[in-house]
Amino acid sequence: MDHTYAVIMAGGSGTRLWPVSRKKHPKQTLPLLGNRTLFQMTVDRLDGFLSKDRIFIVTAKEQAEVLRGQTPEIPQDNFIIEPDPRGTASVIGLAATVLAKKDPDAVMIVLPSDHYIRNVDLFRLVMRVAVDVAGKNYLVTLGITPTSPATGYGYIQRGEPLSEQFDYPAYHVKRFKEKPEQTGALEMLRQIDHSWNSGMFIWRADVILKEFARLMPRLKVALDRIGVAWGTAEQETVLRNEWMPIRSETIDYGVMEFAERVAVLPASDLGWNDIGNWDSLFDVLIPNETGNIVFRGKHKEFDTSGSLIYGNGDDRLVVTVGVQNLIVVDNGNVLLICHKNHAQKVRDVVNQLIKQKEDRYL
Amino acid sequence: MDHTYAVIMAGGSGTRLWPVSRKKHPKQTLPLLGNRTLFQMTVDRLDGFLSKDRIFIVTAKEQAEVLRGQTPEIPQDNFIIEPDPRGTASVIGLAATVLAKKDPDAVMIVLPSDHYIRNVDLFRLVMRVAVDVAGKNYLVTLGITPTSPATGYGYIQRGEPLSEQFDYPAYHVKRFKEKPEQTGALEMLRQIDHSWNSGMFIWRADVILKEFARLMPRLKVALDRIGVAWGTAEQETVLRNEWMPIRSETIDYGVMEFAERVAVLPASDLGWNDIGNWDSLFDVLIPNETGNIVFRGKHKEFDTSGSLIYGNGDDRLVVTVGVQNLIVVDNGNVLLICHKNHAQKVRDVVNQLIKQKEDRYL
Repeated sequence: MDHTYAVIMAGGSGTRLWPVSRKKHPKQTLPLLGNRTLFQMTVDRLDGFLSKDRIFIVTAKEQAEVLRGQTPEIPQDNFIIEPDPRGTASVIGLAATVLAKKDPDAVMIVLPSDHYIRNVDLFRLVMRVAVDVAGKNYLVTLGITPTSPATGYGYIQRGEPLSEQFDYPAYHVKRFKEKPEQTGALEMLRQIDHSWNSGMFIWRADVILKEFARLMPRLKVALDRIGVAWGTAEQETVLRNEWMPIRSETIDYGVMEFAERVAVLPASDLGWNDIGNWDSLFDVLIPNETGNIVFRGKHKEFDTSGSLIYGNGDDRLVVTVGVQNLIVVDNGNVLLICHKNHAQKVRDVVNQLIKQKEDRYL
Repeated sequence: MDHTYAVIMAGGSGTRLWPVSRKKHPKQTLPLLGNRTLFQMTVDRLDGFLSKDRIFIVTAKEQAEVLRGQTPEIPQDNFIIEPDPRGTASVIGLAATVLAKKDPDAVMIVLPSDHYIRNVDLFRLVMRVAVDVAGKNYLVTLGITPTSPATGYGYIQRGEPLSEQFDYPAYHVKRFKEKPEQTGALEMLRQIDHSWNSGMFIWRADVILKEFARLMPRLKVALDRIGVAWGTAEQETVLRNEWMPIRSETIDYGVMEFAERVAVLPASDLGWNDIGNWDSLFDVLIPNETGNIVFRGKHKEFDTSGSLIYGNGDDRLVVTVGVQNLIVVDNGNVLLICHKNHAQKVRDVVNQLIKQKEDRYL
């Protein structure tokens, strides 16, 4: 019997891809890279590797309806609804609790719902090996060779190769470090044994739950109570009562930094991209012959290069004249024009709008 | 009896202010600088100087309705409708013919309908003097000291002061040169006796008609026939029959270059601006403290300077991040993003759209 399951984390808001990513339509629910949404692409990626009934989704109430509509082939019960956002540690703990109750030997593949992977065949191969490694009670991470001193990722320091033999290289993790400051990131970029944490994890549900018991004991108590009630008439009440007081925490900070028996598989060849901000679309989409990427809608360019045009549909014409390295997003009641090098600041824009209660633009 | 009249030329299309200026709503009909349209501002400028019944408008059929609506105080009959565009020479010839028939001593002030003048008091003073000079049978032009080697204006080379005494300096014109090539413009910029032709003219109707007879005799024959029929039942038929075969020509090329007895009044202090393209709004409108001009609509700026934002109305938010010297025009079914230094190219955009028959964007 196969004990492998996927847990797709689909509750994020993706503010740096605003104004396309909005509160009611966060980035994973949008066809940002073509016809399928990022969430659908995440599900598609598991085709031929996991049957649909083995795919679980953790998401927020507001998004569940949309996500269900996008993947009608996934059983309704596989959607686990967080009563309120409490960070990735809580989400993963909840999913592990539910899976361990269903199958004590469950191995869970934890996947963000809003990442891009170019090399899908290699992804499936790596996942198969990762599941094998997880079967030996490792917490498995996927490492990406850094190309910049990014402060948006956790970093993984590789140690010796695992003594067990697998069909793909696998290493002990010497140290797992949550998102660093700029100087720390620069230092780690220089060291060849450091990689970015891709945010995908593979482990046995019981193994990660043991780490929760050791490192986040209060969360574990809540999860245990939820586990007992799960599938009973009390499920919703207990979930809500236990969940709301939980302190929001990431899996990186709450568990991974101090976890034991962590392994890493090198994964740069996957062509992974977290589509973190508008700038990252330049790494994923293929530009036209003048170096521009035009997406949805009609565009006429005059002396324009290195720019991304995300249009508002075919009826509207976007004309650019004499501009370089611009990101133009014409979406609904918002027009964003941002220099490529400032793409990170879109988050600040959104934060300001939240502060000013400009809800109609969020 | 006062013999002074104004003739406002309001038939232009203003393609360089596209996409706000459109075929059906050319720039003179739009409130580009505030609450009043450029055409209304042109009429307002004559307040207290000419009564409304002395203001004549030459325009195209498609625009007459809108213009009449904008100036209900001008008598309906003062709107002269060109059957088809034939250039400024023909427009001025037609107006001169109509005025000369009405008042053989008519002095006409020819004004474009889409220019801006900051110093309205000085404008009225200069006009009063210009009318006096025109009374001495001069063709009066207003010269603007060049600030760049512009190729979009005719140039005027000043000669000796007029021997007659007026309340304002007035000079003989040595040479009138139509729109030059780049090298010619550079050369004239270096010579202190050259100025730009502002496109405003003041002359007796009979004097300019004599020049038409000498320099554009075929046009003059047509105008004479139109003049005979004017005010009779034949007016429309004769106008149409005579007008359609006319060859389109500018007053600069057709008359001014070879005209005799031309005078020029220095007019730089008027604060004149022909609002030729989007860039020119920077000279006319007052920027905010970060050097941006925001017009219609809501704007949030982050590291933005030297930019013009022409919004689509209050419901839409324009956000700019990390950009400089951009012109952003969000208007109806078109979004234009143009570097300030490329504002002249907007005309090329429009020409391409005309060629491609993209009528809905024109």
